[in-house]
Parts: sequence; C-alpha cells; structure tokens
Amino acid sequence: KHILIVPGDGIGQEVTAVGKKVLDKIAARFNHEFTYDEALIGHVAIEATGDPLPAESLEKMKNSDAVLFGAVGHPKYDNDPSAKVRPEQGLLKMRKELGLYANLRPIKLFDELLGASSIKPEILKGADILFFRELTGDIYFGEKGRKNNGDTAYDVAEYSRYEVQRIGRKAFDAARTRRKKLVSVDKANVLESSRLWREEIQKLALEYPDVEVEYQFVDATAMILIKEPTRFDVVVTANLFGDILTDEASQIAGSMGMLASASIGDGTGVYEPIHGSAHDITGKGLANPMASVLSAALLLDISFGLKEESEAVISAVDQVLKKGYRTRDIANADTDPSMILGTDAIG
Amino acid sequence: KHILIVPGDGIGQEVTAVGKKVLDKIAARFNHEFTYDEALIGHVAIEATGDPLPAESLEKMKNSDAVLFGAVGHPKYDNDPSAKVRPEQGLLKMRKELGLYANLRPIKLFDELLGASSIKPEILKGADILFFRELTGDIYFGEKGRKNNGDTAYDVAEYSRYEVQRIGRKAFDAARTRRKKLVSVDKANVLESSRLWREEIQKLALEYPDVEVEYQFVDATAMILIKEPTRFDVVVTANLFGDILTDEASQIAGSMGMLASASIGDGTGVYEPIHGSAHDITGKGLANPMASVLSAALLLDISFGLKEESEAVISAVDQVLKKGYRTRDIANADTDPSMILGTDAIG
Ligand SMILES: CC(C)[C@H](C(=O)O)[C@@H](O)C(=O)O
Ligand SMILES: CC(C)[C@H](C(=O)O)[C@@H](O)C(=O)O
Repeated sequence: KHILIVPGDGIGQEVTAVGKKVLDKIAARFNHEFTYDEALIGHVAIEATGDPLPAESLEKMKNSDAVLFGAVGHPKYDNDPSAKVRPEQGLLKMRKELGLYANLRPIKLFDELLGASSIKPEILKGADILFFRELTGDIYFGEKGRKNNGDTAYDVAEYSRYEVQRIGRKAFDAARTRRKKLVSVDKANVLESSRLWREEIQKLALEYPDVEVEYQFVDATAMILIKEPTRFDVVVTANLFGDILTDEASQIAGSMGMLASASIGDGTGVYEPIHGSAHDITGKGLANPMASVLSAALLLDISFGLKEESEAVISAVDQVLKKGYRTRDIANADTDPSMILGTDAIG
Repeated sequence: KHILIVPGDGIGQEVTAVGKKVLDKIAARFNHEFTYDEALIGHVAIEATGDPLPAESLEKMKNSDAVLFGAVGHPKYDNDPSAKVRPEQGLLKMRKELGLYANLRPIKLFDELLGASSIKPEILKGADILFFRELTGDIYFGEKGRKNNGDTAYDVAEYSRYEVQRIGRKAFDAARTRRKKLVSVDKANVLESSRLWREEIQKLALEYPDVEVEYQFVDATAMILIKEPTRFDVVVTANLFGDILTDEASQIAGSMGMLASASIGDGTGVYEPIHGSAHDITGKGLANPMASVLSAALLLDISFGLKEESEAVISAVDQVLKKGYRTRDIANADTDPSMILGTDAIG
C-alpha cells in the first residue's frame, strides 16, 4: 500500500509526523508493507510554487492508496480579505478533484476525558455521534463574486438531487450498522437548497424503513448538540452546516485535538484531523497529535479494510489516556503537571 | 404609547399574553398609558386569510410605537418541502418591510440558573454576550429557486457594503458602552460575501480605535462559545451565522426560554423571544414566558427609553428565580416539584 503524507501548514507538520510513525509501527507489528511519499498543499505550497495545490501534488494524491493530511491556513491571508491566492483554495480543490463528497466525523468521548469538556459529564456520558458532512457542494463551490461596481458580494449555495442522494445513502447505510437513528439537518423553512435536500432524504427514508429519521433545522441542532448530545446517532448535513456543527461538537470530545475525519468518495480517501493549522502554537511541540493518529486509524479501517490494525491504534490512544498522559489541551486543574507531554513524547 | 401584540403561532399565544400583562403592570405602577391592538402573522394568518402577513397586519405594525411578537411556524409545513405558502414568509416579510436590519440578542445568565445549563458553572460564570445579528440580508433574502428541470436548487447569499456598515456601526457603538471588545464572525476563508463583510468591519475599526476587534471564522466561534463563553463581549455577524450561533448560545443562559431579542432598524421595533412556536408543548400551559417578559423589558428600554421600567421587569424575573420558582425547562433534579409552575402562574 502506498500512502501519501500531506502535512500542509502550521501544526499540520508536527501532528502528521506522529500519525506517520504510528502507521510505521502498525506495518512492523502486523507485517504489512507501506511505502510513503510527501506532497505540498496550502501556504507552504504557495511559498514554494505559487500554487496552493500544485499539479504534482494532485497527481501524487490520485496515484496513492490513501492520503494522510494535516491542515492548511495562515493568518496572513485571513486578515487580507482581498488576497487572490489562498491556502484554503488548495484544500477545496483537492476535495473537488478527488471527488471527496463524504466527510465522516466521528464524535466519541474517551472515558478518561469525561472531565476535559466544558459540558457536564452527566450530559456527555454515552455520547457517540457520526457526522456525514457533504464536502463538494453547497456555498463552498457555487459561483461567487462582486457586482454593482464591487459594492455587493455574493455566493451561491447549490445542491442537485444526485449530490444529496449519494451522501444521504452513505449516512443511511452507516445508521443501519449503528443505532439506526438518522438526523438530517437543514434550514428548509428558509432555503430552497434545504427544501430539495429534505425532499431527497424523505425519498431515501422510504428505502430504509428500519432507520428512524428526524429532520432538524440547523439552529435547533446547534442548541440540542449541547443540551442533549446523546440524542444523536448518525447526522447528515450540507457542507457549510457540517463545518459549523462538527467544530461545535468537538467540545463533546473534550478537545478538537482528539477528532479525526475521513473524506471519501470516488477515488483516493483523505484522512485528517478536524483541527486547523493553529499558527499560535506551531513549532512549539505543544500540539495534540491524537487527531492525526486517529485519522491514521480511520485510514487503516476505511481505505485498507484493516479493522484489527485500526482498533489497535484506537486502543493505544486509550491506553495512553488511561495511564494519565495528557497534552495541554486535554489537561485540567487536577492533572499532574509531570504527566503533561509534548507532541512527540505523547506520540 | 401604542403597542401592537402579534402572538403568532404555537406557544407564541401563551407567552405573549404574559408579556402583555407585564406591560400593563408597568403602566399602572409607573403611571403610563399604553394602548394595545392585535394582529395576525404566520400559520394563524394563513388559516384566517391565506396570507402569512396580511396587509392589515403590516399596516398596524407600521402605525404602532412597538411590536411585541411571539413566534411563527407549524410542523405541517416543515415536513412538506414543496409548500408554496409558509408561516416563516410572514416573519421574513415583516423584517424586510419594517427595515429591521439589526437583531440584538443579549445572552446573560441569571445567577440562579448557573446549574440549569448543560455547560459547567465554572465555565459559564460571568458570561455576558450581546449578539448583533444582521436580519434583512444574506442568504435569507437573495434570489432562490430551482434549475436544470428542477434537479438543482439554489440560494444566493449577498451583502452590500452599506448593509455591513449599518449593522457594524450599531455593534461598535454598543461595544463602546460595554467592555469594548467586538468579535466579528464570518467565513472569509471561503465566502466572497464574508470577505466584503470583513473589509467593511476592518474599515469601521479605524473609526473605533478604543474597541478591540477580533475576527473569527464561524466554525471556530461555534466551538469557542462552548469552550470559553466569557471570552465574548459584543459579537456581530451575518443573518444565517447569527441564527445558528444565538440558538447555540442559548445554552449559556440555561434555556432558550429565557432569551429575548430586539429587532430594530428604520421604523417600529419588534421584540420577541428567540424560541420558536414549540407545537409539542402548545396549549399545555408548560411554556416558559420569561423570554416574552424580557422582550417586553427590551421594548420599554429600546423603543420607549424607559430604563427604570425596563430594569423593574428584569429585577422581577430575578426575584421570581431567587424565590426558587421555575418552569419545567429550567428546573433540574434538585428542584422542589411544588416550585415548578406553569406559564400563567409564573407570569
Ligand atoms: C479551512 C476551511 C476551508 C475548512 C472548511 O471550511 O471546510 C475547515 O474549516 C474544515 O472544516 O476542514
Ligand atoms: C423561523 C425562522 C425563519 C427564524 C430565522 O431563521 O430567522 C428563526 O429561527 C429565528 O431565529 O428568528
């Protein structure tokens, strides 16, 4: 199996290095042969080539069996709304070109971290949510621009029936293997694209009579996720709503630093932490690498079908937490300071 | 002063009746004369006239000094994505026609309710946020429709510089009277309308050198609101992001049932709970009327300039809570069942 390592920007470099080490360890322990290559994306790619996703990187992605990805972004562009070339363009292009229409974000709390969240432990206990975020449509990829002499800016949100069906089907299939509950999130009381979304999910529901479906408006979901997180099993939603809700839901898991994601679709799968490039802590060895390690676990499971290997990785993370080791983001006032480790040490 | 009561749908009826009683009490106590009229909106208006905002209602709104509003919505339409006439159209038309471009949502926790939230008390303590949600632009009011033979649905998000300036200015002005911190929320790493938003806020910031401005992406804000709610003072954001974030932030206040909002702009101000029509509990006398009562307090303060009267209402709510009275939504396992009251009794 050939794995492409794409660290990207900021702490993407540090955490992906740990993820790769874990893959190496798995290869050795379970007698697999993994080969690796590296590719550029984001700000580092712009600096090196002027292009946030160089053709060479894309080619390498297409020719690998899976991609372990880090993060993209740089504060330089954030504060310059008129920048024409941006790191995020590389990420969006990668998603579109590889046909990565389904972004899976499992939100599950390790028992040991029940106290690390800002939400009360009794509210969190038992929470286990699998998000399906649509990843190649919506307002991310519609036409956008300026008009009225630059006085007005616009972005078009768009969904076709086919786009909703394919992500919907993945979510229904997953619900079947879990607790058989699906929440579909939209804003159908206001948006036409949400009404089409709801129509298609309603049609699919007829094919999955064993799955109980609930329709929620995105504002209600944002509230219920905090009030009653155990109410959710599988959640399916559009690109923008998924972006917002999964970052919010990261608080259920105690920290963004614990959350992995899998982007899958027509070809090579891409595995990445849901956290960003975090330039404020870059290069300090403070980043929590567990999201990248757990992304490697998803890679083993989903792209390579290596269930046992994947579970070995998750169990290793669990052991590290059980022994009391923490990174800064998941430590609290009761943590013994000598148990708070840096990126490499905890890796 | 002439006040128009617009209860709308579901529990809107029950809670607005309590809000009106409080206004009556204030008039008696402080020697004011308030006159009242009623008007229809939403599902009840559709049932009576076929129109979610009859011309007569709009006329009455324009001719009153303030509107006390309830909620709109009905499950019947939610599950029928193809319905042409919907209660929410009445609400959106009211906002547009009255020029209500600024929706103020104060999120403040009454001390007595520190335990009612799903968020840990030590995280919540001291949280006090004032949201400015833009209310007459964005994807709510852009062109929307179907194309490709109905196979694709689209919604256009749009902002003009002027629209951003006028809400931005209100938020900066408010920050000046508070802790002088403003967070502007957008998705400028992806959306063109967000980039224009950020440009305009950056320009305004030059006029308010005494206000400290932070720019956040909406996904990050959704996370930080739960992780560190005390980090926020004033927040300004677009219509859709504001819809999602303020519902989420309601959990800081323990319950949606405690949160009031003021919609202001070019003419008559509209005051309303942020909760919806809640048909599941309609007619049962279970609804928490405090959001409507606190909306009446905002009405007295903002539309009538009656600060003392407004504070008397807020202090009355505080006294009720201090005495231990609760509605169901803000009660918890420790609440004495005999202190849990219905809508009228707590009113
Ligand atoms: C960096 C940004 C463009 C991206 C997104 O909004 O999709 C990120 O927030 C994510 O969730 O992967
Ligand atoms: C009912 C709905 C159209 C409305 C909105 O999205 O604005 C509501 O959620 C609100 O926040 O007032």
